[in-house]
Amino acid sequence: MRLSRYFMPVLKETPGEAQVISHQLMLRAAMIRQTSAGIYAWLPLGKRVLANIEKVVRREQDRAGAIEVLMPTIQSADLWRQSGRYDAYGPEMLRITDRHDREMLFSPTAEELFTAIFQNGAKSYRDLPRNIYQIQWKFRDEVRPRFGVLRGREFLMKDAYSFDLDYDGAVHSYNRMFIAYMRTFAAMGLNAIPMQADTGPIGGDLSHEFIVLAPTGESDVFYHENWLKPRDTSGINADDRVGLAAFINGLNADYAATDEKRDLAAEAACGAALKQSKGIEVGQVFYFGDKYTAPMGVTVQGPDGAPVTPLMGSYGIGVSRLAGAIIEACHDDAGIVWPEAVAPFKLALINLRADDGACAAACDKLYADFTAAGIDVLYDDRDERGGAKFATADLIGLPWQVIVGPKGLAAGIVELKRRATGERIEVPIEAVVGRI
Amino acid sequence: MRLSRYFMPVLKETPGEAQVISHQLMLRAAMIRQTSAGIYAWLPLGKRVLANIEKVVRREQDRAGAIEVLMPTIQSADLWRQSGRYDAYGPEMLRITDRHDREMLFSPTAEELFTAIFQNGAKSYRDLPRNIYQIQWKFRDEVRPRFGVLRGREFLMKDAYSFDLDYDGAVHSYNRMFIAYMRTFAAMGLNAIPMQADTGPIGGDLSHEFIVLAPTGESDVFYHENWLKPRDTSGINADDRVGLAAFINGLNADYAATDEKRDLAAEAACGAALKQSKGIEVGQVFYFGDKYTAPMGVTVQGPDGAPVTPLMGSYGIGVSRLAGAIIEACHDDAGIVWPEAVAPFKLALINLRADDGACAAACDKLYADFTAAGIDVLYDDRDERGGAKFATADLIGLPWQVIVGPKGLAAGIVELKRRATGERIEVPIEAVVGRI
Repeated sequence: MRLSRYFMPVLKETPGEAQVISHQLMLRAAMIRQTSAGIYAWLPLGKRVLANIEKVVRREQDRAGAIEVLMPTIQSADLWRQSGRYDAYGPEMLRITDRHDREMLFSPTAEELFTAIFQNGAKSYRDLPRNIYQIQWKFRDEVRPRFGVLRGREFLMKDAYSFDLDYDGAVHSYNRMFIAYMRTFAAMGLNAIPMQADTGPIGGDLSHEFIVLAPTGESDVFYHENWLKPRDTSGINADDRVGLAAFINGLNADYAATDEKRDLAAEAACGAALKQSKGIEVGQVFYFGDKYTAPMGVTVQGPDGAPVTPLMGSYGIGVSRLAGAIIEACHDDAGIVWPEAVAPFKLALINLRADDGACAAACDKLYADFTAAGIDVLYDDRDERGGAKFATADLIGLPWQVIVGPKGLAAGIVELKRRATGERIEVPIEAVVGRI
Repeated sequence: MRLSRYFMPVLKETPGEAQVISHQLMLRAAMIRQTSAGIYAWLPLGKRVLANIEKVVRREQDRAGAIEVLMPTIQSADLWRQSGRYDAYGPEMLRITDRHDREMLFSPTAEELFTAIFQNGAKSYRDLPRNIYQIQWKFRDEVRPRFGVLRGREFLMKDAYSFDLDYDGAVHSYNRMFIAYMRTFAAMGLNAIPMQADTGPIGGDLSHEFIVLAPTGESDVFYHENWLKPRDTSGINADDRVGLAAFINGLNADYAATDEKRDLAAEAACGAALKQSKGIEVGQVFYFGDKYTAPMGVTVQGPDGAPVTPLMGSYGIGVSRLAGAIIEACHDDAGIVWPEAVAPFKLALINLRADDGACAAACDKLYADFTAAGIDVLYDDRDERGGAKFATADLIGLPWQVIVGPKGLAAGIVELKRRATGERIEVPIEAVVGRI
C-alpha cells in the first residue's frame, strides 16, 4: 500500500480523552476513532490488525475441532426468557423494540441461541461432542465505557459453545479450549495467564480467565511467579484426553487467581513467590453443565434410546479488546511494537527523498519486489521530511523498516531496522527482500 | 471436514415457511435457520459460502483501490439529524434508546458515518480521491421480511463511499466501482445486468442497480436481449479514465432499466429485442455529489488554498443476499449447483461402504491427499446408505463428487462426478487428486 493513497490520519498530539497508553496509541496511529461513547470506527490500519487477530483465533479454533457459524446480533427476548436471563441480565443488555412491538435485544453473549440452534440440528448421541463458534459483534451497555477498545460497548468477540454427553467429555472439551487459548495468545506474542475466576452472569461451576499482566489492567490478580515464564504447549496432543488433562492439572498446580477467587491458604503456600498485579482479561472459559440445556428442554437420544441432556461449556475471546491488550504489552516511548502475527503490515518502506528520481525508482522497484514476494508493505512515498517519516513508522510499529536514502543508494545500500530492538543494519539493496 | 464430526442438519422435507427455491434449498441444505422474522443464523455450510462471497467482493474492492475499514453497527441519531435522514428514513430504521436515554440506531447504511470519518481524517486536496469500504451487518426493519436472505432484516452488506475533488473524478470513481461490480458478479458465476435505477433514500442524480434475472425476483426489469450474453471485462484497464468511460458508455448503449426508470422511447427502439422479466438486485451504485458533504459542512483545502466540498458516491453489494441470488440462478431439481468461487467445499468424498475396511482406508488416504493438496473436502464417512449420501451431496451442490465403492476399488478405480453436468467418469484412484 502506498501511503500517499492510504487513509491513515495519524495524530501528533495525544488526545485528552484517552487515559491508557493503548487507547492513546490507537488514536494516534489512526487505528480507531470514537463515534459514540464506547463505540469505535476501525480505520484501515486498525481493521488490518483486527483481521489478523481474527485469523489467529480462527486458526486455533479450527485446529481444536471447533466449527464456525454466525449468529445474528439482534435476537428475540423470548429465547432469553426461557433461560431466565432476560430479567436477570440488567441494564447492560441493550433492549430494542421493533416496528411490530416485538421485544428484541443486541446479543451480549449467545448461550441461548447456540443452545437452540444445536437442539434444532442434533438428534442423537452420534451428533456429540460438538464445539460450535462464531466471531461476531456483541453489545454490552456499560455504564462507564472507558480505555478505548479495552472496555467498549460494541465489541468483537469469539464465542464457542461445547456440547457433550457426559461430564468427562465436557471436561475434555474445556481442556481442549484451554490449550487452544494458550496457543492463541502465545501466537500473538502475549503471556496470558489462566487464572481461576468467578463465573458471573454466564453461571456454572468452573471458569478460568486468561489475563495479560499490565499496570493499566482493571483486575487485581494474584499468582505464583512461575507464571511470568511463558509455558510451552508445542508438544501437547489435544486428542490425548489423559495427557492433556495431566498437562493442565500441572499448570494449575501453580497458583493464579482473580480477586473474586483468592485462596489465602494457597497464597500463603507460595511464600515469597506470590505476586500481585493488575491484569487485562482477554479470554474466559466456562463449564456450566446443564444450566441452559435443562431449562430449555434440550435432549438427544442416547445409545440406549433414553434421552440425554447435553452438558455445555462456553469460551470467549475478546477479539477487539486484544488489539488494545497487545499494545498495552507491546509498546515503547516511540509507539506500538507489533508482534509479527498481528502487525498490520510486515514492513515500512521509507523513501527519504520522494523528490529524488533515483530514490523513487529504487523504492518503486523494492515495493514491487516485496509485493511479488507476498510481503505486506506500507510504502511511505509521501513528500515529507525523513524525521516525520521515521516518527510515523515508529508510531505505527511495523516489525521492519527499510530505509532508502540518496547516499546509501549511490553505494547500493539500504538500511534495515528492526522496530522491536531499534537495531539498524546496512544491507545491499538487492539482498533486502531475501532478508525479510 | 469429516461429515461425522460436522454440523450439517439437512432436511428431507421442504419447510412450509419457504416460498422461493433459494430459501427452500438454504434451509434444506442446512445453510441457515430463521431465529426471528427476517433474521437468520448461518450454520457451518452457510457461513463458508458467506465467507467465500466476502472473499470475492473484498478481492475486487481491493483491486479497484478501495480501502477497507469497519464501522460500528450502533450509531448515534445526532449524526443522522445532520443529514436530515433521521426523520426522513421512516420505520425501516431500527431505533434504539441506550441506558443513558441517548437516541441510537442500528445502521441501515452508512453515508453519514463515512462522511464524518472522512472529514476527521482528510484535510487537503492531496487526501483525495479516496474510496473507503466496509463489509458489515446492517439492519432494515422491513414490514414484511420474506424469501429468506433475499429480503431479510439483518443482512451483510459491502458498502463503499468515494470522495472526489471534482465531477470528472467522481464519475471516474463511479465507473471504477461499476467495472469492479461486473467483475465481482462474473467471478461468482452470475450475469448481473447494470440497469438505470431510482436513487431512493440514498438520493442523488445517477444510479445503476445490478440485477440477476430470476422468475422469483421482486423487481420488474426491461432490457435489450444483448444483455443475456455476459460481457467480457478482462481487457479493461480501470486506471485508464477515458477507456473505462468509453467501455461503460458502450455498455449503457444497450437499454436496461428497472420499473421506476423505464424509457418508453428507448424500449420502442429495441423493437423485438426488448425483454421483460423479474430480477433480484444484488448491488447498487450511486452518484450524489454534495448531498451529504454540503449539509455536514465537509471541506478540504484545495490546491489554491480555498476550501473544496468533496463529491461523493456510494456503492452497495448485498453479500448475504448474494447467497440466495446465486442459488436462484444455480440450482436444479436435485439441489444447489455452486459456482466454484463460492462453493462451501470443492468436493464431496463419498464412501459408499463406511463399514468396509478397504473403502474406509482408501477414503481416509484420499481425504489426507486432497487436504495436503489444499483442496477443501467434505468427507461423507457416515454409516449411511449410498442413496442417502448421493442425495445429500447433490442437495448441497459441491462442484465435484468422488465416489468410492468396494467394486471399483478392487479394480483401483473411483468415480468422479461433476455436479453441474451430472457427468460421471471412472478414474484410477491414484490419479484423482491430480484431476481436481
